[in-house]
Amino acid sequence: MNVSIIVIGDEILIGQVIDTNSGDIARMIGPYGWKVNDVQVVGDDSTQILRATNRAFELSDIVLTTGGLGPTKDDITKSILCQYFGGELYENADVLENVKEVVAKRGLKLNTLTATQAIVPSSCKVIQNRVGTAPLMWFEKEGKVLVAMPGVPFETQQMFREAVLPMLLAKFHSNVTIEHRTLLITDWSESRLAMEISDWENSLPTYIHLAYLPKSGLIRLRLDGTHADGNFINQELDRYKNELIERFGDYILHDDDLTPPEILLHHLNRLGLTIATAESCTGGNIAHQITSIAGSSSVFMGSVVAYSNDVKHRVLGVANETLEAFGAVSIPTVEEMAQGACQVIGTDCSIVTSGIAGPGGGTPEKPVGTVCIAVKTPKGIISATHHFPGNRHRVIDRATTTAIISLIKELKNTQNHIYIN
Amino acid sequence: MNVSIIVIGDEILIGQVIDTNSGDIARMIGPYGWKVNDVQVVGDDSTQILRATNRAFELSDIVLTTGGLGPTKDDITKSILCQYFGGELYENADVLENVKEVVAKRGLKLNTLTATQAIVPSSCKVIQNRVGTAPLMWFEKEGKVLVAMPGVPFETQQMFREAVLPMLLAKFHSNVTIEHRTLLITDWSESRLAMEISDWENSLPTYIHLAYLPKSGLIRLRLDGTHADGNFINQELDRYKNELIERFGDYILHDDDLTPPEILLHHLNRLGLTIATAESCTGGNIAHQITSIAGSSSVFMGSVVAYSNDVKHRVLGVANETLEAFGAVSIPTVEEMAQGACQVIGTDCSIVTSGIAGPGGGTPEKPVGTVCIAVKTPKGIISATHHFPGNRHRVIDRATTTAIISLIKELKNTQNHIYIN
Repeated sequence: MNVSIIVIGDEILIGQVIDTNSGDIARMIGPYGWKVNDVQVVGDDSTQILRATNRAFELSDIVLTTGGLGPTKDDITKSILCQYFGGELYENADVLENVKEVVAKRGLKLNTLTATQAIVPSSCKVIQNRVGTAPLMWFEKEGKVLVAMPGVPFETQQMFREAVLPMLLAKFHSNVTIEHRTLLITDWSESRLAMEISDWENSLPTYIHLAYLPKSGLIRLRLDGTHADGNFINQELDRYKNELIERFGDYILHDDDLTPPEILLHHLNRLGLTIATAESCTGGNIAHQITSIAGSSSVFMGSVVAYSNDVKHRVLGVANETLEAFGAVSIPTVEEMAQGACQVIGTDCSIVTSGIAGPGGGTPEKPVGTVCIAVKTPKGIISATHHFPGNRHRVIDRATTTAIISLIKELKNTQNHIYIN
Repeated sequence: MNVSIIVIGDEILIGQVIDTNSGDIARMIGPYGWKVNDVQVVGDDSTQILRATNRAFELSDIVLTTGGLGPTKDDITKSILCQYFGGELYENADVLENVKEVVAKRGLKLNTLTATQAIVPSSCKVIQNRVGTAPLMWFEKEGKVLVAMPGVPFETQQMFREAVLPMLLAKFHSNVTIEHRTLLITDWSESRLAMEISDWENSLPTYIHLAYLPKSGLIRLRLDGTHADGNFINQELDRYKNELIERFGDYILHDDDLTPPEILLHHLNRLGLTIATAESCTGGNIAHQITSIAGSSSVFMGSVVAYSNDVKHRVLGVANETLEAFGAVSIPTVEEMAQGACQVIGTDCSIVTSGIAGPGGGTPEKPVGTVCIAVKTPKGIISATHHFPGNRHRVIDRATTTAIISLIKELKNTQNHIYIN
């Protein structure tokens, strides 16, 4: 089943807001063998919205729109859909009731502008928005469906998963199974990896496709299998996945589609170890990435962001002599920080960074992008100096991921019994 | 001048990667009065890419593509563009030289697959990619231009700003000025604000448009002015902006288009104050947001992420009696954390959070979304309990922004001399 998505909003076209809804939807429909045919981003403009709607219906049986439903006057989607699908705009009493409830739950009073959210085209079936004020609208035309959804990401995500997707699945039954297997590979460049396995890739059967998804120093190798026989395609995918595992052995960071912080938490939980971070150039981003995951509090205890040398010395116990002799961005400093983090926060493991994120602060010996990383486990401390390309954000991002991966590498082949007593 | 963007890549359509390139480009062309007409996201598929190219040229004189240029075989953009614009694919010696340089700078050796990046259509003018291996390609047809750019965000961002945009400006001269003024408003909902100023908004002249851009509890009100006379439109925008400032007074957090962390740094620098954070539920995200900004090290000293009660007590000095009597998510706890953060890190100000980000950990008295926030300045400590809707990510995001805004409110009306002894 093909799906077209129309993202509506001037704020997206001018680059003030990034569209995350289309990706969220794509990830939610993927497991059902459905795919996004195309995404069109258009402004709050009737000509553009109409043109996009026509085009989307040419390509797909399911059209999903997000955005353009707020109560302010630059949101004009509802009247255009009314024009497209016929009927007239009227105030729907159930929607009004729902809007009142949602507004009350937020501790606010209903004003007349928000009340206009209850005005909907008579040609649609309303899906009540349980987490926001803009109602979702389900339109049908010649066996095809358009669902208009709000633009606020958490509203769209929750309502699509809980209400829209089940309704779409009930209407459009799919008889092809699409399954995926993902391997995360480290320490290979995309092109070197592609060359290494080009013969293998070319020998893959037509029902299996290999995709390369590089990100932050990791390559996600994904096998996509499409077949009418679900058992068959799962067996085939496992077979080809195992061939890759045999071939790349230790370069495989993980054999499932998790993010590095998720993989780290998996191993810490498995081994019963706790963790702290001590961060200079990453400024708290490693702690943030770890604590973004639900349940992280079972292993993550805390962190010291030591931006100034004074904090490195006073809070983490790095010797002033070390800072003076080697500098803040040095192996001896990050190793002392790694020790200090475990002591101060009281954990088994730590992840530490100190580097020059830029744009200022670089020297000929330690240019912008130089980052020293140390990780401590009960077995000891491992450290290395890295050089990351790009601007401040990219250096922080790469340093964060590399630091997390460094600890995963130390933990992934470790058996539980090593740490018992 | 109208611009159409085509974002190419299966990884975007399936939701594994979020497109940030189109927003980056939109923000870079905005100041020149150019706007993005539409964005099309398509897969690595010749039919889709051709169809999108045809459509983009129908709408715009400038077409920009990102992605689909990697060295692996699922990138097929180059041969399609060769088909579309004519000519043949050949190995360009200058590109090969550039690819070698870029690869060497990364400390890698050139392999034969990466070398294929040097193969380009003879119908294009090559723009050397100084920060990556995929060359940029400039095509012309009937006075219109298509520029094919890589998909890696930092490569596209840097090469568009430094090479492509100047070339486009030289070719397409614009004689209309578009200017913007932005005000950041707090403590108003979008709909209440829209009602409050609807008369004023309706009386705006046709050359000025008002846009509402709500995000994380803040509303960005942006006045867009379009006029042939640059001086005139700037005067008009200032006049209308001042009317809004008079009307909303203290609700205006800032009168320029900065992010909350940027506004905070502005005031800390202005007042010569230093800052620390002590974070529980935000897990380091406040520190991360602040340190993402270049130059933050002049005022930001460090942070303690105190996820466990033990760290709150031992490192930040929160009394065990306080934790036992009121709990970790309480006003007394965050106030003691605020004091502790300033003492431990050695700063004038602190920002503190403790809350329940969910999905677990909620109780009837303190449901998921409950977050206590405290901020300390040399004048004292301000604290409040908030309730944020949504999932874990949204609670962390809202708590982060609200905490930063809380300190901005304390600082923004403060004059420098107050802190000079």
